[in-house]
Amino acid sequence: MALAHYPVVNRQGVTIASAVTNLDIHDIARAGRTYGISGYYVVTPLSDQKRLVESIVSHWTDGVGAKHNPWRAEAFRLVRVCETIEDAADRIRVREKVSPLVVATSARRHDSPVNIGFIRSKLEDVPVLLVFGTAWGLAPEFLKSADHILEPLAVRGGYNHLSVRSAVSIILDRLLGDGV
Amino acid sequence: MALAHYPVVNRQGVTIASAVTNLDIHDIARAGRTYGISGYYVVTPLSDQKRLVESIVSHWTDGVGAKHNPWRAEAFRLVRVCETIEDAADRIRVREKVSPLVVATSARRHDSPVNIGFIRSKLEDVPVLLVFGTAWGLAPEFLKSADHILEPLAVRGGYNHLSVRSAVSIILDRLLGDGV
Repeated sequence: MALAHYPVVNRQGVTIASAVTNLDIHDIARAGRTYGISGYYVVTPLSDQKRLVESIVSHWTDGVGAKHNPWRAEAFRLVRVCETIEDAADRIRVREKVSPLVVATSARRHDSPVNIGFIRSKLEDVPVLLVFGTAWGLAPEFLKSADHILEPLAVRGGYNHLSVRSAVSIILDRLLGDGV
Repeated sequence: MALAHYPVVNRQGVTIASAVTNLDIHDIARAGRTYGISGYYVVTPLSDQKRLVESIVSHWTDGVGAKHNPWRAEAFRLVRVCETIEDAADRIRVREKVSPLVVATSARRHDSPVNIGFIRSKLEDVPVLLVFGTAWGLAPEFLKSADHILEPLAVRGGYNHLSVRSAVSIILDRLLGDGV
C-alpha cells in the first residue's frame, strides 16, 4: 500500500503536498505488518520530508528504537520512502515482474467504484497497490489515472470523517482480516 | 466506550497512569461518531491530564477549531473526561437507568473471552461500555473486575501490535459496521 502526501487536495480542493505525520508512519506500519502486506510506501516529493521519514524509519529499524522495541522494528521494515505513487508502482513491477493494479481510496463516492470483494479476488492473480491520501484526500488527477477506485466506507449515519489511520486499519481488516 | 490511561501496565507489567496522546482523542472521537457510539470517555485520574483533555475538547467544540472544522466538533461532542472507569460506568447508569455491561479489550487471550457476536447481541438489551487500554494494555486488576473480556483481534501471522487507534477502529467496524 501507499500513503500519498502528494498529489492530495487541501480543504479548498487545491492540489498540494502535505506534511508527514509521525503517527501515520507508526500506526500504518503496525497495521500493515499485522495484516501481512508486503510493503508500505510513504510517498512525498519533498526532500526534507523524505529525509525526515528516513530518519524516523532508521531510528526504529537500526537505531535505539530497534533495541527498545523489536516489534516496532518488524513493522518499520515494511516502510519505503518514494517520491511519487508511480515510483512505488515501478518498484513493485520490478520486484514482482508484473505491473500492480493501482487502487485509489476515497471518502467520497465516484463513478464505477469497486468493492472489497473485487480487490480480494484480484489479489490471487496480481499485486495490488492500495493508495490512501492524506490531507483532504487524493487529488482528482490521480483518481482519474488509477486502475480502480475503492468504494467509500459507507456507514449508516452518513458521517464520513475517519482519520487515514482508522480508514487504513478498517480497510485492511475487511480485505485481509480473519473475519473474511 | 472508554479509553483508559489508568489502570494500565507499562512494558514491565507494572500498573501506571499513562499520558494522554492527542491523536487518540481525535481519531477515536471521529471513529466513534462514524459508527454511532453514544459517548467516548477519556479516563485519567491525573488532574493536569484531565485539564489538558478538557482544553483540547473545548478548542474543537466551542473554540476556533469548531469554526474551522464543524465535522470535528461533531465528533468531539462525544468526548467526556472522567477519573475512573467506574465513573464512566456510573454516568451511563444514571443516563440509561441500568448498569452497563463492562467489556474489557486486550491484545492477549484470557480465559473465557467473548466474541464480537456476543457483544452485538447484548447491545439490543443493555448499554455496553467497551474499555480499551493505552500503554501496554489494561491492568490485570481491572480485567478481573470487568463483566467480560473481548477475544483479541487474532490475525493469521501472529503479529499483534496494533495501535489502540487501529484496534478501536477495527473493533467498532466489526461490531457496528455496515458489513455486519
